[in-house]
Amino acid sequence: MARHAAYIAVDWGTTNRRAYAVAPDGTVLHSLRDDRGVLSLARDAYPAEIAALRARLGAESVIAVGMVGSSRGWCEAPYVDAPATLDRLAESCREAAPGVRIVPGVALRDGRRPDVMRGEEIQVLGAIHAGAAPATALFCQPGTHNKWIETIDGAITNFTTVMTGELFALLRTHGILAGMLDGVVSDGAPFRRGLRRGIASGNLAATLFEVRAGLLLDRLEPSEAAAYASGVLIGADVAIRDDLSRRPVHLLGGGALTELYRVAIAEFGGTSVTVPDGSTTAGIHALWSLNA
Amino acid sequence: MARHAAYIAVDWGTTNRRAYAVAPDGTVLHSLRDDRGVLSLARDAYPAEIAALRARLGAESVIAVGMVGSSRGWCEAPYVDAPATLDRLAESCREAAPGVRIVPGVALRDGRRPDVMRGEEIQVLGAIHAGAAPATALFCQPGTHNKWIETIDGAITNFTTVMTGELFALLRTHGILAGMLDGVVSDGAPFRRGLRRGIASGNLAATLFEVRAGLLLDRLEPSEAAAYASGVLIGADVAIRDDLSRRPVHLLGGGALTELYRVAIAEFGGTSVTVPDGSTTAGIHALWSLNA
Repeated sequence: MARHAAYIAVDWGTTNRRAYAVAPDGTVLHSLRDDRGVLSLARDAYPAEIAALRARLGAESVIAVGMVGSSRGWCEAPYVDAPATLDRLAESCREAAPGVRIVPGVALRDGRRPDVMRGEEIQVLGAIHAGAAPATALFCQPGTHNKWIETIDGAITNFTTVMTGELFALLRTHGILAGMLDGVVSDGAPFRRGLRRGIASGNLAATLFEVRAGLLLDRLEPSEAAAYASGVLIGADVAIRDDLSRRPVHLLGGGALTELYRVAIAEFGGTSVTVPDGSTTAGIHALWSLNA
Repeated sequence: MARHAAYIAVDWGTTNRRAYAVAPDGTVLHSLRDDRGVLSLARDAYPAEIAALRARLGAESVIAVGMVGSSRGWCEAPYVDAPATLDRLAESCREAAPGVRIVPGVALRDGRRPDVMRGEEIQVLGAIHAGAAPATALFCQPGTHNKWIETIDGAITNFTTVMTGELFALLRTHGILAGMLDGVVSDGAPFRRGLRRGIASGNLAATLFEVRAGLLLDRLEPSEAAAYASGVLIGADVAIRDDLSRRPVHLLGGGALTELYRVAIAEFGGTSVTVPDGSTTAGIHALWSLNA
């Protein structure tokens, strides 16, 4: 007998969207992924999008996380300040329309440095809730903007956003290194040489010019330049952590980029544990259970 | 009585070109500046450009420095390896056409890290030759690619290129900070806060995201963001130098950007001396005197 969905969970990001039909016990019954991210939608397009998701996934109640709750999204859900727990996120959801709740992001507002996240918080707290990571842990979620996230007893207490992926994309497309970074980026000798250089780098703006100089002086092959530059950027990214020798990194998100971070963490003397998929839906289900 | 030019000196860069009619004693008689830089010229356009310069500036002999001698320029003048002196540059000039010599750049080829310059070498060695800086000194030449250049006894022994200006331009035009960095960049409280943050930054890709987070969390005014971000980048740039407490920096090139570096060097605890204009023509005149 077919099971019915209790609600729809949506991971609604800048570029992409994933939606899940979820049973009362948290089982994902159906899912879809498309490119109807926040940047592709006008604000008045959301009600029709919600109607289409309801028709397709067979439930009324919707819980959405990510950039949909930002000032560029549908309906701004103000940041919750760290330390942020699932309970705190649950009580701070914003009702964008009848039956549609948007989960807030998390902010570091008053500390030494400001930072913000939207979407990663639910993945981290979901991983902890599902038992896929300890309640006190260090997480890394590679992406266009890599996030290092620290939790203590199930609360997000600190985090750092690093624009590693964005800088690589900018350099590959524009400026003096454009046209030099079109090769394959994968683990191998050039990537690892880049990692070691990035780990030792005091300033990315200086170390990255070595890509151009290395090519001009035949110290770097054109086919190696992209992997080397990626290594420099990811090496400098992991090197901001002074705690990698003391505790493992829980890596979120699968795929090639996460694998490169795994290699980088090992090169820097750390260890990593890959968190299995499903943390985002686990986190949303915990919120749904708290609010239902 | 009008004096005659002995030769034409050309500082031929990527975007701009300056040309000078120079008397036998080194006096600049006339000069011009235009946007006929290397990127605007096809390789076969150079003979006509030289003919036009000769007609306009009234001399036959031409000495050109800068990107005109690069693989993207007219005629490649292979890099001289550091340590590089004026004598070494003079004997390594490339004759691009009858009466036209192109001065080579300088490379760090075999050391811990590769680096290259074209054009800055003549400015530094010209400043020393003219007595505007000591023969053993540290120089800084702010620009799209800032250069820190060390000399010992009149030879360029080491240097570092930092893509500070380019990163700022990329971030201002593309990516998540685009549209946030259009304000005025000048010295003031936001620039100095940025400097302090940049000096303490372990990773520009992390520190620069604080611009976005600071704006979202009202810790940074929109009108301050450009100056703050520039401060972060320039602060991180000067912070690569561990020798600023021991010796002054000789700043090359006037203008607003050089003034920002002067402020940054002071913020980092260093001192600077501004080298007066005329170093490039002084350096070219020294080469001309050696070769004439």
